[in-house]
Order: sequence, then C-alpha cells, then structure tokens
Amino acid sequence: MNPDLRKEREAATFNTELLTHILDGGSERTRRRREIESLVIGDPDFCHEDANFLSRSERYEAAVKKSALMIMKMREYGISDPDEIYYYKCCVHRGRPEPLDLHLAMFLPTLLNQASPEQQDTFFMRAWNLEIIGTYAQTEIGHGTHIRALETTATFDPATQEFVLNSPTVSSIKWWPGGLGKTSNHAIVLAQLYTQGQCHGLHAFIVPIRAMGTHEPLPGVVVGDIGPKFGFDEIDNGFLKLENVRIPRENMLMKYAKVEPDGRYIKPPSDKLTYGTMVFIRSMVVGESAKAISKACTIAIRYSTVRRQSELRPGEPEPQILDYQTQQFKLLPLLATAYAFHFVGQYMRQTYLRITGDINLGDFSELPELHALSAGLKAFTTWVASAGIEVCRMSCGGHGYSHCSSLPGIYVNFTPTCTYEGENTVMMLQTARYLLKSYTQASAGQKVSGMVSYLNEMSQQRLQPQQVSARSTSVNLKDLSSLVEAYKIRASKLVELAAKSLQTELQLMKTKEDAWNHCSIDLVRASDAHCHFVIVKLFCSKLAEVEDTAVHSALYSLAHLYALHGVYQNTGDFLQAGLLTVPQLTQVTQQLKELLSQIRPNSVALVDAFDYRDEMLNSVLGRYDGNVYDNMFEWARKSPLNQTEVHNSFYKYLKPLQSKL
Amino acid sequence: MNPDLRKEREAATFNTELLTHILDGGSERTRRRREIESLVIGDPDFCHEDANFLSRSERYEAAVKKSALMIMKMREYGISDPDEIYYYKCCVHRGRPEPLDLHLAMFLPTLLNQASPEQQDTFFMRAWNLEIIGTYAQTEIGHGTHIRALETTATFDPATQEFVLNSPTVSSIKWWPGGLGKTSNHAIVLAQLYTQGQCHGLHAFIVPIRAMGTHEPLPGVVVGDIGPKFGFDEIDNGFLKLENVRIPRENMLMKYAKVEPDGRYIKPPSDKLTYGTMVFIRSMVVGESAKAISKACTIAIRYSTVRRQSELRPGEPEPQILDYQTQQFKLLPLLATAYAFHFVGQYMRQTYLRITGDINLGDFSELPELHALSAGLKAFTTWVASAGIEVCRMSCGGHGYSHCSSLPGIYVNFTPTCTYEGENTVMMLQTARYLLKSYTQASAGQKVSGMVSYLNEMSQQRLQPQQVSARSTSVNLKDLSSLVEAYKIRASKLVELAAKSLQTELQLMKTKEDAWNHCSIDLVRASDAHCHFVIVKLFCSKLAEVEDTAVHSALYSLAHLYALHGVYQNTGDFLQAGLLTVPQLTQVTQQLKELLSQIRPNSVALVDAFDYRDEMLNSVLGRYDGNVYDNMFEWARKSPLNQTEVHNSFYKYLKPLQSKL
Repeated sequence: MNPDLRKEREAATFNTELLTHILDGGSERTRRRREIESLVIGDPDFCHEDANFLSRSERYEAAVKKSALMIMKMREYGISDPDEIYYYKCCVHRGRPEPLDLHLAMFLPTLLNQASPEQQDTFFMRAWNLEIIGTYAQTEIGHGTHIRALETTATFDPATQEFVLNSPTVSSIKWWPGGLGKTSNHAIVLAQLYTQGQCHGLHAFIVPIRAMGTHEPLPGVVVGDIGPKFGFDEIDNGFLKLENVRIPRENMLMKYAKVEPDGRYIKPPSDKLTYGTMVFIRSMVVGESAKAISKACTIAIRYSTVRRQSELRPGEPEPQILDYQTQQFKLLPLLATAYAFHFVGQYMRQTYLRITGDINLGDFSELPELHALSAGLKAFTTWVASAGIEVCRMSCGGHGYSHCSSLPGIYVNFTPTCTYEGENTVMMLQTARYLLKSYTQASAGQKVSGMVSYLNEMSQQRLQPQQVSARSTSVNLKDLSSLVEAYKIRASKLVELAAKSLQTELQLMKTKEDAWNHCSIDLVRASDAHCHFVIVKLFCSKLAEVEDTAVHSALYSLAHLYALHGVYQNTGDFLQAGLLTVPQLTQVTQQLKELLSQIRPNSVALVDAFDYRDEMLNSVLGRYDGNVYDNMFEWARKSPLNQTEVHNSFYKYLKPLQSKL
Repeated sequence: MNPDLRKEREAATFNTELLTHILDGGSERTRRRREIESLVIGDPDFCHEDANFLSRSERYEAAVKKSALMIMKMREYGISDPDEIYYYKCCVHRGRPEPLDLHLAMFLPTLLNQASPEQQDTFFMRAWNLEIIGTYAQTEIGHGTHIRALETTATFDPATQEFVLNSPTVSSIKWWPGGLGKTSNHAIVLAQLYTQGQCHGLHAFIVPIRAMGTHEPLPGVVVGDIGPKFGFDEIDNGFLKLENVRIPRENMLMKYAKVEPDGRYIKPPSDKLTYGTMVFIRSMVVGESAKAISKACTIAIRYSTVRRQSELRPGEPEPQILDYQTQQFKLLPLLATAYAFHFVGQYMRQTYLRITGDINLGDFSELPELHALSAGLKAFTTWVASAGIEVCRMSCGGHGYSHCSSLPGIYVNFTPTCTYEGENTVMMLQTARYLLKSYTQASAGQKVSGMVSYLNEMSQQRLQPQQVSARSTSVNLKDLSSLVEAYKIRASKLVELAAKSLQTELQLMKTKEDAWNHCSIDLVRASDAHCHFVIVKLFCSKLAEVEDTAVHSALYSLAHLYALHGVYQNTGDFLQAGLLTVPQLTQVTQQLKELLSQIRPNSVALVDAFDYRDEMLNSVLGRYDGNVYDNMFEWARKSPLNQTEVHNSFYKYLKPLQSKL
C-alpha cells in the first residue's frame, strides 16, 4: 500500500467499520451487501474487458450479456429481496444503467399495478421469464415534462375489437425510453385514448413491437436506437413510430379505467393511484445523488493524499495536495454533502415506506408533503451532486480527465438525473407550489404540519411584530443547532418573500399563471432554501442516533461543515434575514477553516467508510492501495490505439503528405 | 424556416450584421472570415461522416486525414496570416482539437524562439514540411503545474558529444502531450540538464522518437497513446518513456543556454524570455471561453424558441420555453457573459500585442500585470464558461444529452482549459500574489498602475477614515457606471481582507508559506473579485466604441444584466462592503427581471450575431432554420446501432436466455 495512504488510515480518530454499518443501516446489512458483492466480483463469468476501450455497440452487447447472466444467476441464488437485487445489479453493472432497467423497474411493476387479473395471467409470467421483454414508452420527441400534451393516439375500433395506435406527427414519435431501441419486444405505450369519437386522455397500452422468435420489428412499427448520448452507452434508448398498429382491446391496461367491447369508456375510480411510483423513484434518486458524490469524493480524496505537488516550504518534500487549503475547500464540503445526502436518502426511503403503509390503509394525508419533498430534494441533490462530481474531477488535475479515473463516467451517467423523472426546475416549482399553499394556510391561522411547520411560527411572529425584531439575534456559528435554526428562518423568510412577490405580480392585473411565471425565480429560491433547511435538519437529527463517540464526533464536524459552508455560500440570504451581521462574516471564514483542518486527518477514513470495492469504483486514481502511476501506465498501454506501434493513418495520410510537401 | 424563429428574427430591434462586424473587429474581417469558411465548407474533400458515430480510432484517423489535407490546401491557397490560419483550421476541425495542434502551436514556435540559427537551419524547414512532426513534452505523469520538480534527465557525455536522456521513475514518464502518442516523430523534451556532475535545471531538447520512413519507435523509446479521455477523441495525447536515449549535443535548444563541447554550461542571459508564450496562450484562452459559451448559448437559445412545452395560460397553445422566467434566468445572463468574455478576449489580445511590442523594445514594465491578468482571467472565464455550457445543455431538457445537440461535445472539448496551461486555482493564486504585492506598494504610498490602480484610492481612503463611511453610499442599480464602481470597491475590499488575513496568519508565527496557504481561500476570492471587476469594466468601456444606437442599446442591456447578475450572485460581498442595503435586495431582483424581459425579444438576434454557420455548430437543436425534430429523427436513424434491425446480442444472449427460463 502507498505509505501516505497507510499513514492517513492509521491516523484516523474513529473505527471506519462502525461508520460503514451506520451507512448501510446495520452490521448485518453490511455483511449481506459484502456477501452479494463477492458473489459477483468472484464470478469469472462477470470478468470483462474495460468498457472504456469498447465501441458503443460493443458496450451495449457487453451489457446485454451481463444482464442476461445476471437474471439467470439471481434466480439460481434465489436473490429476490429488492435491496439484494439492487446490490447484485449494481455490482454486475458497476453502477451503470443497463438494457433491462426499464423492463425490471417499469414494465413489470406497471403490469403489477395497472393490469387486471386476466391481463396479469396473460402477460406477467411471460414477462417475468423474459419471453416478453418490455419498456415504458411515455416521452415523445416533442413532449417530456408536460405529459398531458402527448400526441400518440389509440383509437378503439369496435368492429374488430382493436385499438389502432398512431404517431400522427414527427413530434409524437416516442423518444428516449431505455431498452426500446433494440432490446424490447413489447412496450407499454402511453397514448390519448379515443373511443366513440371522444378523447379520454392518456392511457397505457401493451404494444408488441418486435416479432417473438425473430425479434424483427412488426408491421407498422418503426423502432430503433436514438443515437449516441452523453453517457448511457450501455443502453439502447429508443424511438418508436406507430403507423396504424392494431392491438386487441385486452391490451389496454384495465385495472382501473376500461373500454367495454361496445366502446363505452369507464373512468378510473381515482387518479392518485399512479402517483406513488413517481414519488418512489424521486425519493430513491436522493440516495443515488449520495452514491454518485460519495464515489467521486472517494476517488478525489484518496488521490489527493497520494499526489504530491509543488512546494509549501522551501527544501521540504512536495506536500500531499490535500494539504492545500484550496483543495480542502473544494473536497471536504463535498464529503460532508455526501454524508448529508446519504442520511437524507435513508430518511426519504423510510418515509416513503411509512406513508405507503398509510396509503394502503386509505390514508392519503401525508402524500402531498412527500410529493413536494421528493420533488424538491430530487432537484436539490442531483444539481449539487452533478456539479460536485465535476469539482472532484477537476481537483485531480489532468488525470481527472482520463477515463481511467472513472470520474468522467460517473458524471455522464449521473447528470441525466437532473432531467429525468421530472426536470429539476419544474420540480423546484412543484415544491414551491406546496410551500406557498402551506404559507397561505399558515397565514390564515390553519396549522400546517411536517417539514413546513416552521411556517406556523412565522405567522405567529407576524402577529407580534415587536417580538420579532427583538428575537432576531444572530446565529451562533459554533453551535450546530443554532445553525439549523438559522436555516429554518432563512427558509421561512424566502417563502414569505416569494409569496409577497406573487401578490405584487397579481396586483399588476396579470393572470394567475403569468404572475406565477413572473416570480418563478423567487419561487425556485424559496424551494432551494426549504430543501437546504430540511437537509441540515436531517443531518443534525441523524447525529442523535450515533452512539459511538468517536464516530459521532467525526460526523458532527461534517454536519457542522455542511451547515457552515452553506452559510458561506449564501451570506446574502443570512444577512438579509438578520441572522448574520457583517462583522460576523470573518468568523464564518475562520470557523470554516478550522473545520477543514479538523476534518482533514479523517478524510481518508471518511471515504473508506463508504466501502466501495476497487471493482465498483473502477478508478485507477481512487485505488484502495494508492498505487496510481504504475497502474495508469499499465492501463494506457492497453488502449486500442496502442494495438499497433504505427497507426494506419500514418501510411494513409501522413507519409503521402510528407512526400508531397 | 421554423415560424417561431422567423418571428423572433423579424422582431429584433437592431441589425445583427452590424453587431457581427463589431464581434469580428470590422466588416472586412467578417467578409474575409466568411470567405475562408466557405472555402472549407464548400470543399467536398472535407465532407465526412458524423464523428459521433465513429470509434475513437476512426475519429483519430479522420482527424489525421483532415489535418493532412488542411496543410496541403492552406499552402495551395497561400493562407499564412495567423488569424486566417486560425479561421481555416477551426472550420476544418469544427473547433475540435486536432493531431497537429502541438506541432503547429508549440513545436514550430519553440524552434523559432529557442533554437540557434544553426539549429534552425537543421530543423526548421524539415519541420515546416512535416518531414519532422513534433510535439512539446513537458508534463510528466507525476508532475504538472510544478515544473521545477520534473524528473526526466539529460546527462551530457563529452566522450561521445551526446546527451543521454532518461525517465528514471514511473512518475517521470512524459504524459499528456498532444500528438505524442502516434502522430509525432520528434518531441521537444523538457529535462533536467546534468553536465560536469551538476544539475542546471530544466532545458529543452529535440529528441527523435520514431524512425523517419517507417515511423517505428526508436530504440530506448517507449511511446504510445494515454488512452481514452473526457473529450479530445481526435487527439493522441501520449506517453513517452526514455531509456538511455542518446541525442547529439546539437539537439539541445541553444539560442540562450548552452553546453560547450567540453561540457561547460553557459547560462541564458535572462529567464523572462520564455515567459511570453505562456502569457500569450492564457490570453487567447479568454477568447476561447467566449467562443465556447457563445456556441452553447446559440444552440440553447434557438432551441428554446422552437421548443414549446407545458401551459402558461389554460387553453392557449404551449408557450415557447424561452418565455419561462426560469429559462431566461438560466440563459440570458450566460448570453451576456458570452459578450462580456468576447470583448475581454479582444482586449487581452490587443494588450498582448501592445506589450509584446514594448518587450521587443526592451520594456518589460507591463509584463507582470499582463501575466497576473492573463492568469486570473484564464481561470475566471474558463470556470464560468465550463459551468455555463452545462447550464445550456441542461436547459434543453433530454435532447441536450444527445450528441446530436453538440452540447456534450462542446463541454468535453472545452472543460480541459480549466486545467491546462496552468491549473485554475494555481492561476488564481498567482493573480492574488500580484494583487497583494500591489496592495503592499499602494499601502506604502507607492502608486500602482493599470487595472489595480483602484488600490491607490483605497490607501487614500484609509488615511481619511471619516470620509470613507460618509462616502459609502449605496450603488445605483439602474446605472451601469455606478455598478462598475461598486465592483471596483468590492474588489478593493476583498483584496484588503485577504491582506489582513495574511497578516493575521503571519502573526501566528507560521512560515510565510504556511501563512499563505492558510489564507488561500481568501486570496482566491480576492482574485475572483478583481477579475469580475475587470470584466464589468471592460464590457462597459466597449460600449463607448459602439456607434449604432440600436446595437448600443442592445449591448447596454446585456452589460447591465451581466453586472447586475453578478451582484445577485454575490449579495453578501456587496452588503459587506456597504454598497448595498438589505431593502435594496428586492430591487436587485426586480431590476434583473426587467432586464430579462427587455432582452428576451432580442435574444435570437443576439445569438445570430455570433454568426456560427450550421456546419460549425454541428447541432440539430441549434440549426439556423429551427427544423429540429425531423432532423433529429433522421440523425438517429444513421446511428450505428441501427445498421441492422436486430442487434447481434439478441441472438447471442437474449434468445438463449429466453429458452432457459
């Protein structure tokens, strides 16, 4: 092992293994995760060439191979618990998306949730056994977020008892669904339902798109891959154009809405029933943000202790680059962010499960808050993580650009989360809508509950204006709970500002929608502050659960850094809310620097606790043993351009040029 | 043409052609640029397959082909003016880096500047005619920015009159030079010179690395490609390991330093002589930042007027997405940034030429400021542009992720500027060193000149403390010159804070170097504020040169937006400096929103004025005619995965799986 890394590990003030258990949610879960990872990593069938050296078609093929093997082996091993499937799958595909993702995560669950019992009999086992390979085709080339405007049509023809599906325009071509281009032979297609001359809005239809056996596209189906993208090389995101494609009446998913043989349309009993999946996926994305940024931090922080560069003190050896304050300032707040998001991810998961339980008992009361929270946190965490990965990459200097660092791959495979499952700005505005609604309720004296309950206090304050200004003492920067309080007041202030901005716009006699649009900058800012408060608060609450004092102390410093760094980046807000005074600003910086120095000695242990095996990170810079340069040289020599000493282009173009000049 | 785009163009309040002339530096230059672009675009030899569909080896080969053709044709056409070479080259390679970049931009110039007349006779014409293809090998796997620590050695052997070159460690392997892996047969190698048992530091040597004729690596030379990277697919960035490679004494570049036949070392007369190239390249990078962000804005803004989505007013058609305030807030400040950086790039170029003239006359007096300014502005503009490209990409929703948008390509080929030619944080600290030196001088009553002259005023203010607080009236947000003044005072305040922070650290009895490190966060912040001030100031000065009132008015709004947006993002600084009051914060937002509405109708004309031909942008989303969806569909159908209806992997993996389950 690299001696610098060894020293770092020896100097840690806490037991990393204990922290790993906290991250996993218990020692037993750590054990089982490692067991499953070993099943994959020790399996010679999953040995493979470095994907960085393959063409896109080869990468897709390698992924299909692994997905097929994965399905076989999970059934052999009897792995069926959702968490265990997730561990296994992540390990097989090294965290990258894969061709069967939509079959497993969208097609099968949609059948389970929206197919009638008869339809389940017809389709489910065939899909379970991959005779039917499916995807979920919603987004069109011209419409993403605003799904009501989707253009694909499904018109019922009672004469033949069939639906006729059509893509009436170029902009109506289905676009982006994963696994649609080459892998799937069926798609659940979202289309505007027409029957008896009337449109009944979007409904879901099971559409066969490729022939069983030959896998050739069926008549009227134009299907293919949408071409190379930023990342997602393993996936055949596809297009689908339907030209009078006929499917039996029974292929409309009819658990709730129905079309009778005579063409009569029967409404679904409620439209909240499809709500849950979306909220679930957004809640899970928070955990994905934590994973992506924790991987990037692991790589950048380990490398920053191995890399030595420049001169701090004349005549002394070059320092480890993590000893530069600027490097600490880049990486340690991101490390704190990784922990913060991890705990928020755990919270969202638990909350989702709790509320789903309530919903199954008929209690929908907490759904609106979960919906708002998952939308905002999805946007907040994916934006921060996405930008943070790039900070990590650039903190590694030139080598961060090499695919052997794995950082470019982490970025391109993560950044799409900012757009899919709800474009981030739209998500922030959804959260804002909930915040403003809660604000209006609280202002009217109705008590609001959950994470927005601070709005109740605000309305009390406004009733006693004198007390407010008296109370407005500034934050104690050394005290985490005082910082949590400050974030709360900042959020409440920004929600109030947004509400006032909306009122002002409304008074200018615009329509409600125009007014909303004209204050959307303020609305996004309010959502951002709300999410920031929630994260600081949850990180702080998590500390109470940590028993080991050494681990507690290490995490406390991180939580403190996370909170203080946010203050540093948003001093304007805190000054504006009267939470901070100008003379205090120097203390913010001073305190921040102290925390950096305090966390610096634990930084390698804090990334080690994430417990990513080298095979999962797949990064030469982030190797556990720190033997970076030898392995980088070895990796480079395998590059396809080095298969011959002289590249073909020399004979074809350079040599002829030399003789002509 | 798309009717929305046509309407946008018709509604513009100014003549885009006039603005294009300003950007090019005169109508004649616009004419000539277009003429040269047409030479390439109309040339059937330069037709080529979409690079997005090629493997890396194919992309490299296609680039070599184009580079060879380019050299031939430029000589045929007699294109030899540096600007014209640049236009031609950019157009051939569509702004992407190419295999001969280092030969043209580093190898030939280094020969011109550092080779003795005899060496020029030996090498220059052979290099000019590409018999010798060269690169510049400085960076090693273990050392980038801190070049003094490079490990490669060149030891003089008087017995044979040769230098013996060695890479003594793995970390000393040359790494990253463009064109080194496969293209070059020579390299200028930077190595520690040893003669008569003494080390004389870094010197440059011409080292043949591949045999003339066969292009095979020479004995003792281990050379190859460093493997796939984030972008730069067209370039064979390479590694070079030297094992007792002998070169004649005459291959050390001896215009200044020399080694005599007996091994005696003769020092160069000055070490400032190699300074210029670095400053030149950094100055040029500012212009590259402008180009990258202006391309990204062109694509995102055109697409945002073509794309219609969601609902603003119930029952009305879906609005153009540029009508959403949040979209304007993302894109229009970046558009303003593109203009700001463009004018700063022009200024840096002119200043470089002026100061180079002075240097040739023996006057080095302005070099330190230019050095500091080019370092800081290089860092400031590349960071902003790099992050800005990603904002543009994400503002296009899902389609921004497709390579057909060209946005991922713009990003990956631009982001390396944050690291090469001086890592950005290191650059910011170099600028800070100059700022603190100037501050110390000004504090001691010495007058400092140039862009830092505001530090003189500050020292006056400190002599009359009473007047300062009296003077500290807040900024007039509607007045651009008042904003320039505010940026100046903010910069001066942050330089002062950094200086005080350094003094405090020094009093804690640390070494000078430790103290510097312990306040480097503050130092970077001061540099950042200084650069921001310079940019706002230069943008504002440029307006005075614009005669056409309609163009002037459009640019004035942009400059105003640029300045105000920076205030919005850094309210803490402006509040701290007493330039802004809390009640004014609402006005900042209000004023910002007004500017967005004001610029919105001109936004397409403002990107049209950049005058990128479709062939240069190479973006389906950014097409001049706005026919996005049809062309996207057409592009996708050419994707390599669509060459067959059924992908091989179906027969190999999916069909067998289906039969097993």
